[in-house]
Amino acid sequence: METEKIPDIVIGRLPRYLQALQRLQQEKKLTTNSKELGERLGISAAQIRKDLSQFGEFGKQGTGYSVPFLINKLQSILNVTSVWDIVLVGMGDLGHALARYQGFANHGFRVAMVFDNDPQIIGRQVGSFTIQDTTDLVEKVSQAGIRVAMLTVPASAAQEVAEKLVKAGVKAILSYAPITLNLPVDVHVDYIDPILKLQHMTYYLD
Amino acid sequence: METEKIPDIVIGRLPRYLQALQRLQQEKKLTTNSKELGERLGISAAQIRKDLSQFGEFGKQGTGYSVPFLINKLQSILNVTSVWDIVLVGMGDLGHALARYQGFANHGFRVAMVFDNDPQIIGRQVGSFTIQDTTDLVEKVSQAGIRVAMLTVPASAAQEVAEKLVKAGVKAILSYAPITLNLPVDVHVDYIDPILKLQHMTYYLD
Repeated sequence: METEKIPDIVIGRLPRYLQALQRLQQEKKLTTNSKELGERLGISAAQIRKDLSQFGEFGKQGTGYSVPFLINKLQSILNVTSVWDIVLVGMGDLGHALARYQGFANHGFRVAMVFDNDPQIIGRQVGSFTIQDTTDLVEKVSQAGIRVAMLTVPASAAQEVAEKLVKAGVKAILSYAPITLNLPVDVHVDYIDPILKLQHMTYYLD
Repeated sequence: METEKIPDIVIGRLPRYLQALQRLQQEKKLTTNSKELGERLGISAAQIRKDLSQFGEFGKQGTGYSVPFLINKLQSILNVTSVWDIVLVGMGDLGHALARYQGFANHGFRVAMVFDNDPQIIGRQVGSFTIQDTTDLVEKVSQAGIRVAMLTVPASAAQEVAEKLVKAGVKAILSYAPITLNLPVDVHVDYIDPILKLQHMTYYLD
């Protein structure tokens, strides 16, 4: 199976397909097809068939896709058949919300450690976690072999903390800080910023 | 100025340019150029010049861009010269975090009303807001003329709440619920879901 050259934009759609399939599974549906998936996702059936065909033959003409089979295939392609530990840095309101978020379960992730640099909150419990001191971040994270991080620190601290994470061996960072990080090319970085999304939409409002 | 046909992918990059410019302004820089912006954003200088040129001539060959001038232009293009009121629905951990988030100020938005359907928390204070009953959502939101919403309800409730928002006159919805909404085409919808972003990155991890 040649997956090297699949465009990143195709890869970016696969988690949405998986999400829709997992909802179908919750609804006890055993089979689906590109038309049904397309209607749920607002993506054309042809696009979905084309995207999935890059990874092999997953469905049969006329009968469509087996929901559990396609879920397994997508989980395997996306590397989420087992669970990735996540290190979460920055325990403000958003960090608290993410530490307590129940939605990571069954999607390939779990928060494993939480850090902050504020002496006022280091040592406190958040759910089942004790907030640890970022001074110990590199040692603790590298010992645990954690490779995925979420960053919920202020913009002014984000670059420095991200560099610590990279030093600890982290290879994928999801940052909620409103600043572009400058990191080695072998580290995958993505961003979540509601303001960017809201401003994109207001462009279209009269 | 013909802006009708500018690709949506270009529009989606403008908030990032604005974000970078506002950071330059915080750093007291008065001028910049496409090379500096590009390095900060990980976008090529040529791409930035091409994107901006679709809206007119903003810089001079050799001297670059005036930071405050370009900020004003981008705010005007993105429709964020004044402040949009936001209605926030779903006051769990994430709703609380967004209601208290200080980052909307100076970026064209402010949370104006918060709602939930849980009798246990309706009437409670969150920062300066009183949690209101979603039963009153359509009336209150349409009276206030609010057109932008953020949705932080569970997936199972998202479609129903989104339809209420549309009924109230909302035209742009940023949803944190892990489900694709099915809404009229004149309503702009975007999504924030950390799992989709994390799974996109783990594809590339060994």
